[in-house]
Amino acid sequence: MQNIPFYQEEFISFLKQYKTDKEPASLYDPITYILHLGGKRLRPVLTLMTAEIFNANYKTALNAALSIEVFHNFSLVHDDIMDDAPLRRGNQTVHEKWDVNTGILSGDAMLIMAYQLFENYEPEVFRDLARLFSKTALEVCEGQQYDVDFENRDDVTIPEYLKMIEYKTAVLVGAAMQMGAIVAKASKAEQEGIYNFGRNLGIAFQLQDDYLDAFGDPKTFGKQVGGDIIENKKTFLYLKALEFSEAEQQQELQDLFSVSPTDSNDKVQSVKQLFISSGAARATTKEIESYTKQAFSVLDALDISDNEKDLLRQFGENLMTRKV
Amino acid sequence: MQNIPFYQEEFISFLKQYKTDKEPASLYDPITYILHLGGKRLRPVLTLMTAEIFNANYKTALNAALSIEVFHNFSLVHDDIMDDAPLRRGNQTVHEKWDVNTGILSGDAMLIMAYQLFENYEPEVFRDLARLFSKTALEVCEGQQYDVDFENRDDVTIPEYLKMIEYKTAVLVGAAMQMGAIVAKASKAEQEGIYNFGRNLGIAFQLQDDYLDAFGDPKTFGKQVGGDIIENKKTFLYLKALEFSEAEQQQELQDLFSVSPTDSNDKVQSVKQLFISSGAARATTKEIESYTKQAFSVLDALDISDNEKDLLRQFGENLMTRKV
Repeated sequence: MQNIPFYQEEFISFLKQYKTDKEPASLYDPITYILHLGGKRLRPVLTLMTAEIFNANYKTALNAALSIEVFHNFSLVHDDIMDDAPLRRGNQTVHEKWDVNTGILSGDAMLIMAYQLFENYEPEVFRDLARLFSKTALEVCEGQQYDVDFENRDDVTIPEYLKMIEYKTAVLVGAAMQMGAIVAKASKAEQEGIYNFGRNLGIAFQLQDDYLDAFGDPKTFGKQVGGDIIENKKTFLYLKALEFSEAEQQQELQDLFSVSPTDSNDKVQSVKQLFISSGAARATTKEIESYTKQAFSVLDALDISDNEKDLLRQFGENLMTRKV
Repeated sequence: MQNIPFYQEEFISFLKQYKTDKEPASLYDPITYILHLGGKRLRPVLTLMTAEIFNANYKTALNAALSIEVFHNFSLVHDDIMDDAPLRRGNQTVHEKWDVNTGILSGDAMLIMAYQLFENYEPEVFRDLARLFSKTALEVCEGQQYDVDFENRDDVTIPEYLKMIEYKTAVLVGAAMQMGAIVAKASKAEQEGIYNFGRNLGIAFQLQDDYLDAFGDPKTFGKQVGGDIIENKKTFLYLKALEFSEAEQQQELQDLFSVSPTDSNDKVQSVKQLFISSGAARATTKEIESYTKQAFSVLDALDISDNEKDLLRQFGENLMTRKV
C-alpha cells in the first residue's frame, strides 16, 4: 500500500483525463469548473486505498473513486443552491457564477455521469456498485432534508441529530471504502466491516467538525471560528449543552441563539463558555472518541494484515487529531 | 398482446403499490404527489407493450416501466422549477405547493429511485437497462439545456431544433420501448430497431405538438390554442416560416414575436396566417409524415408478427391523427 499523497496524485491525474468538455457547453462548463475547484479528494482516496487493502491494484478502482467524487460534487452544487451559498472552496458557487437553473441541470447531469462510471465494470460488480451507490445517494438526500427540516424545529433530539450527520456525511465515507472492497471482490462480511469503519469514522469526523468550529485554533482552522454559533446552527455542542443545562442556562443559550448581533464576538464567547460549563464540550470530545473507537474495533475483525490495520488506524487518528 | 387501456390499468395498479410514503415526509410527500397526479402513462405502456411484442410477459417489464415513469416525473419537477411553471396537469407544481428547495431535492431522490428499480433484474439485464437509462437521461438534460439556450438565440437552425426535440422528448420514447426489448432479451438489432421506431415516432409526436398548438381545434385541444405564439416560442413552425419567407415577412414575424400584447387574439391570427402563407404549416405536416414513415419503415425489418407490426403502426397512426 502507498501513502495518501500518492493516491491523491494518481486520482487527480485520472480526473484530469476525464472528458467533460462536451456540448452544450452551458451544461458541461459548470461541471468542469466544480470538478477542478480542488479539495482534499479524501473520499476517492479512501476508495483507492481500500481496493489495495483487499489486494486489488488501486487502478482498478479509479472509475469507482471518480464516481464518488462526481457524486460528492453534484451534492455540493445542489446543496449550495439550497443554502444560498456564495462561495465554495474560496470560489464562486456554480449558481452564483452561472444561475440557479444551470446549477440544477448541471447537477442532475453529474448524478447521471456518476452512474455511468460504473459501466467500466463487469455486470456483477456494476450492479453491486450501483446498488450501494443508489442506497447511499438516497440517504444523502434524506440527510440533507433532515438538516433543512431541523432548522425550523426546536425539539431535535441527539439521536435525530446523529442520524442526520450519519446520512448527510458519514454513509458516503463508508460507501467510498466499500466500493474499493467491491472492486477488489472482498467478501460481503469484509465489505460490511470496512463500510462500518468508514461510517463510524465519518460520524466522528463530522462531530469533530462541529467541535472545531467552536474550539478550533483560529491560526490553523480554515474557516471563521464560531461560524456555527454566529449562524445559530443547532450542532451537537448546542443540543448537548441544552440537555445538560438547568432551566436558567437553557434560557440563556436559547436567547443567545435567537439573535444575530453585528459584532458577534461577545455572543461567540458567551456561547463557548456555556458549551464548556455545561459539560457539552467534554461530552462532544468523548463522543468523537467513542465513534473513533467503534471504527477501530471493526478493524480487529477484518482479515487484513496488521500493517494495513495500523495504516487505517493511523489514518483515522490523523483525522481525529486534526486542527483543520 | 393486449390493448392500450389494459396496460394502462396494469401499470397504474403497479404504481399504486410502489411505496413512497417514507421518512422524511418532507422529502417523500412531493414524490407521492407528483407520481399520482395522473397523465396518460404512455411511456410505461410502451415498455410493457414492447416486452410482449418480443415474447415476454408484460409483468416482467413493470419495474422498468415504472423507472421510466419515475424519471419522466423527475424531469417534470426540475423543468417546472426552471420554467417557473405554476401548474402541472391542472394542479400546483411541486415547487409551488412546497418550495424550490423541496423541488430540487425530491427530484434528485426520484432520479436515484428510478435507478433502484433496475435492482429487480439480474446483473446483465440490470447493466443494459442502467446503461441505456444513463445515456438517455443525460440526453434529456442536454435537450433541456439546448431548449434554455435557444430562448436567448436568434440564429437557431432547423437541424438544431430537431436535435433539441429529439433529445428532450424523443429519446425517452425510444428508450421506453428498448427497455421492454431488453427485459424480453431481444437481440441487439431488434433493440436498436424498436428504439429507432420510438425515437422517430417521438420526434413526429413533438412536431405534431408544435403544429396542434397553433392549428389544433380549440374544442378538442387540451391547452390554450396559440399558447406557443403568445409566449413567442421559436417552434418548428416559426423557424420554417422564417426560412421560407422574404425579408419583409421575416421582419413582420420577428416583430410579432417581439411583443406580448394583453389581447393576443390579433397576434395569434396574424402569426397563424404567416405560418400558412409562408408554407411553414404544410412543411410541418410533411415533416411529421416523414418521421412517422421513418418509424414505420423500421418495423419492416423487425422479426415480429404482422399482427404486431399492424398494432404498432396503428398506435403510431392514432398518435399522429390525434387532435389532443
